[in-house]
Amino acid sequence: MNIRDIIKDYPDYPKQGIIFKDMWPVLDNPDAFQYILEEFEREFEGKIDTVIGIESRGFVFGAALANRLKISFIPIRKKGKLPGETISRDFELEYGTASIEIKNESLKDRNILVIDDLLATGGTVEAAIKMIETLNGNIIGLGFLIELKFLNARKILSEYKIFSIVGYD
Amino acid sequence: MNIRDIIKDYPDYPKQGIIFKDMWPVLDNPDAFQYILEEFEREFEGKIDTVIGIESRGFVFGAALANRLKISFIPIRKKGKLPGETISRDFELEYGTASIEIKNESLKDRNILVIDDLLATGGTVEAAIKMIETLNGNIIGLGFLIELKFLNARKILSEYKIFSIVGYD
Repeated sequence: MNIRDIIKDYPDYPKQGIIFKDMWPVLDNPDAFQYILEEFEREFEGKIDTVIGIESRGFVFGAALANRLKISFIPIRKKGKLPGETISRDFELEYGTASIEIKNESLKDRNILVIDDLLATGGTVEAAIKMIETLNGNIIGLGFLIELKFLNARKILSEYKIFSIVGYD
Repeated sequence: MNIRDIIKDYPDYPKQGIIFKDMWPVLDNPDAFQYILEEFEREFEGKIDTVIGIESRGFVFGAALANRLKISFIPIRKKGKLPGETISRDFELEYGTASIEIKNESLKDRNILVIDDLLATGGTVEAAIKMIETLNGNIIGLGFLIELKFLNARKILSEYKIFSIVGYD
């Protein structure tokens, strides 16, 4: 199935010179969503016991995958949305910084797949990895719907297995 | 299965006098997540062809349910996150207002279940309903993990079928 044809391009969004890749049409297509989840399953079934999804598009694929595999789902949220004790980490965006957060609970002995919709420069997932490893989680892989290969995130993530459904050179 | 015992209370969060109901432990429990999805399925299977989830905790249950039923998933997002033409709607929060947004695409002939994690005063889902009906969608039901019954949202939503997994009097 050609997921690439279902992802829609929006030139000059959110700003001039950027081509925004809109994943939502994939969700409006049950066969496409099913295909993506099956790809993640084929790659990671039996190797992981926990999916960690990054808010909020990582929740879409991450939670559905966790249910299919009958394993745990844990969120990484934008800062300020989780009750109780948390740890957080800042990372750089194109302009300024953002911050993500996870509950401060041990992830020891957990075999984890980190899921987000998009791998661009890798800043978000790198911050997620650092938090997960601080909590002693064992990262088995990083899964994305879309990888913008020309941004070379694999360079800073070279220690990790990266699995993406659609890549753009 | 007693989902109520898995949802965790955080007294005085996010402010004094509020008891925050934390749904995330339910997602870390594969049997609990499965149970919830099966409950929604039993109620709505065969009656709907589209799930609309409200960002971001509505994405967790909504997308997983859509995949299980092999039907469409469409997001309602916080304002400013969807590319292309959209419609948006403001609603009141305890302090101030918030705004949610949906793509400006016809929902004619769609039979829709709206999913969110929490039914409190009903302001968010009411704004969602108005947008969906503006796009000519046919709302079959409203589904929630948690319903705070003492806030009487059913009064303003009396035209709609409401299905919640756990209610608090």
